[in-house]
Amino acid sequence: MANTNQPHTRPSLTTRRLEALSDGVIAIAATLLVLEIKNVPLGTKSLVDALLERWPSYLAYLISFVVIGLIWVAHHGMFERVHAVDRQLLFLNLALLLLVGFIPFPTEILATFIREGGTDASVATAFYSLIMTLIGVVFTLQWWHLVHHPHLMIDTVTEKQLRRSLRMSSVSPIVYGITIPLAFLSPWICVVVYIGLSGYFARGPSARALIAMQKAADEAAGITPPAELGTDDD
Amino acid sequence: MANTNQPHTRPSLTTRRLEALSDGVIAIAATLLVLEIKNVPLGTKSLVDALLERWPSYLAYLISFVVIGLIWVAHHGMFERVHAVDRQLLFLNLALLLLVGFIPFPTEILATFIREGGTDASVATAFYSLIMTLIGVVFTLQWWHLVHHPHLMIDTVTEKQLRRSLRMSSVSPIVYGITIPLAFLSPWICVVVYIGLSGYFARGPSARALIAMQKAADEAAGITPPAELGTDDD
Amino acid sequence: MANTNQPHTRPSLTTRRLEALSDGVIAIAATLLVLEIKNVPLGTKSLVDALLERWPSYLAYLISFVVIGLIWVAHHGMFERVHAVDRQLLFLNLALLLLVGFIPFPTEILATFIREGGTDASVATAFYSLIMTLIGVVFTLQWWHLVHHPHLMIDTVTEKQLRRSLRMSSVSPIVYGITIPLAFLSPWICVVVYIGLSGYFARGPSARALIAMQKAADEAAGITPPAELGTDDD
Amino acid sequence: MANTNQPHTRPSLTTRRLEALSDGVIAIAATLLVLEIKNVPLGTKSLVDALLERWPSYLAYLISFVVIGLIWVAHHGMFERVHAVDRQLLFLNLALLLLVGFIPFPTEILATFIREGGTDASVATAFYSLIMTLIGVVFTLQWWHLVHHPHLMIDTVTEKQLRRSLRMSSVSPIVYGITIPLAFLSPWICVVVYIGLSGYFARGPSARALIAMQKAADEAAGITPPAELGTDDD
Repeated sequence: MANTNQPHTRPSLTTRRLEALSDGVIAIAATLLVLEIKNVPLGTKSLVDALLERWPSYLAYLISFVVIGLIWVAHHGMFERVHAVDRQLLFLNLALLLLVGFIPFPTEILATFIREGGTDASVATAFYSLIMTLIGVVFTLQWWHLVHHPHLMIDTVTEKQLRRSLRMSSVSPIVYGITIPLAFLSPWICVVVYIGLSGYFARGPSARALIAMQKAADEAAGITPPAELGTDDD
Repeated sequence: MANTNQPHTRPSLTTRRLEALSDGVIAIAATLLVLEIKNVPLGTKSLVDALLERWPSYLAYLISFVVIGLIWVAHHGMFERVHAVDRQLLFLNLALLLLVGFIPFPTEILATFIREGGTDASVATAFYSLIMTLIGVVFTLQWWHLVHHPHLMIDTVTEKQLRRSLRMSSVSPIVYGITIPLAFLSPWICVVVYIGLSGYFARGPSARALIAMQKAADEAAGITPPAELGTDDD
Repeated sequence: MANTNQPHTRPSLTTRRLEALSDGVIAIAATLLVLEIKNVPLGTKSLVDALLERWPSYLAYLISFVVIGLIWVAHHGMFERVHAVDRQLLFLNLALLLLVGFIPFPTEILATFIREGGTDASVATAFYSLIMTLIGVVFTLQWWHLVHHPHLMIDTVTEKQLRRSLRMSSVSPIVYGITIPLAFLSPWICVVVYIGLSGYFARGPSARALIAMQKAADEAAGITPPAELGTDDD
Repeated sequence: MANTNQPHTRPSLTTRRLEALSDGVIAIAATLLVLEIKNVPLGTKSLVDALLERWPSYLAYLISFVVIGLIWVAHHGMFERVHAVDRQLLFLNLALLLLVGFIPFPTEILATFIREGGTDASVATAFYSLIMTLIGVVFTLQWWHLVHHPHLMIDTVTEKQLRRSLRMSSVSPIVYGITIPLAFLSPWICVVVYIGLSGYFARGPSARALIAMQKAADEAAGITPPAELGTDDD
């Protein structure tokens, strides 16, 4: 399908447009989160109390916004190194966008029910964990597909780098997956895990992906010699 | 209108901007679908039941999101090969966006009424089919216009390719059109047809269009010789 | 401010980004229009009646979507020929976006009240006309500013072209302005005027602007000699 | 991290994409503001009164839309001169987007409660001031980070320019910060301060940033000699 006897040093136009569509859906999903915070109606006894009472909504907004931001970083880190998109990758990416676009709903459910305690708080948290797990699974499947179709990548990407990306991305569905049953023990421990996982990705893999894509961009512009990419990325 | 004595190997700037506007409307329409899923209010007897009860909303979200994704693929496949936009194409495209932007409404109607059974379920399904049929008609009219104004295309597109694209795109309004009366026999058979049609486009024409646009992009970047485009696209 | 002794043959990067922001706001405003169409609640006697009853919402959606589409065409036609943005143009453009982003609200008011008849229908229509008039005024002010600061334009734009654009754009605030008092005679005549005005812009100036920007894009890409731009645009 | 022995005359691809994501969130947040204006229900006694009664909503829409527009100008002015993004800058920018995406909520609270008077009007205003202060703090932290990591900037930016940008951006959190306690004296004085601060940024620093970025863009395109940037920017 791809012309493997040709050098591919940068993403193709189709890759760019798919990334643009993904960026659009990701940005909109993040910004729609605010609509889930209910307005305070006139005639409320105390606005201060009503605003403070909404803290689970703020917390849910914060967690989901950060997650969506990290998905953007990870997605950008992947597609900066994808040269060509085949059918499977296109539809895996569509499945990812479908799930990311869905995030405002479990976020609202989480914000509404986590404080209630009892089964409903557990169900709301497990539902949120489920969607996040599915996102992690689709993301990992994308890397898995790229590992098995390395000709879709730009030429400077090594198999070792691809396998490491696959390993790293599998952390997310595993940890989120564990929080599904964990939600029935304690929803609040799940929230701590959500925050911890975001912190882990923000400090570790995402930052590394960022540096890698910065370098890839520099390299594509002819500034850094390609050989450095592999070493610096470790 | 166009300078036919000049080589046109890639979309013009205006084509690019029209595609950017279209991508915007398409991405936003897809992401707004989630707002149609009603939140579960506090005080609901069982959150699990309330979440499960919303399955028609999830199904409608899934169907519409995939349709919108396939419209994006088809639209991208068309405009990657359009060099110049004339008035008719501009306004056909505006009509397409108007209908795509409308999708969240019939989606919500479908999700609300399909489970009711009786006339309302049929009406809701026929309404959804009607909007999809209109989208298919406008899309087919766009290809029809391009077949009759081939100078709007980039130079590597042959008339044979254009006619095949026209034929393929006409499948969509015909099949959706059939589901309008079919809705009064069985709404659920319509849902099966919706899914089947998406599967058909995902496997067949859309994937071919994707490969074609990938190649066109490569070719525009001077990687693949233009002659290969025609053959590989079959 | 601008280096008038340098050739400016294409929009600058800042112009591009301002156009990208404008495209974003325009696309979102158009797509949010659908949220103004109220869902049909379960338990409605007849879905067919409920859907048909919403025809003023569909009409308002149609009118506003087409207007926003034409604003996009006109805005694109302007900024394709703007080389540099100064403070006044930036803030006129911000005012334009502020008003375009507001369109969903008067659209909803129009859809809700036009069928009521009496004073409320007239007020709703006059309110809609007022916002459209303001948009036309800001747009005309932008052209007026460009006529008096021709160094902001790319070099191939003549003063004659600028003055014609100014004249043409002034049609919109004048006609919409007349519909403000007209709304108190007959809201429905106003609706006919809205449709007629859109038709006029779609057939005439907008299409000409489109052809001009197509040519400008070709010219920027070095395909058409700049000298042709002036003649063909007449 | 960056190759300081290489010339960096323009923003890298990653910088561009981060700016694109930011532009998306900013444009969507601005356009979602209109959803906070409540529709007038059928059966209202007088539509004119109902529309006039909503003036605090229009005022809040106006203030927030202009603020978001100025954030866009300032953000664009910063990132036009950023060559490379490191982890801290990425996450500061994510925090900025998180707060900008939140603006529709305090805007709605302000619109609902400012007219009530008493404690609730003060709380609503203080809440709005608080979010604006936080945005100002994050923005100032971004400049502070850039002052201490000048290798992230393109090469034509001097330390003097960076320090001036830092000083200017600190005006915003200080003034908004003062309006938090001021809200308990008089919410309306706060509104006057909001408008005055927007006017100050629109006339002063934002316009200067705009001119600077225009020149930077020209310079990147090889039109203006880099040496002029420093002098003209004063």
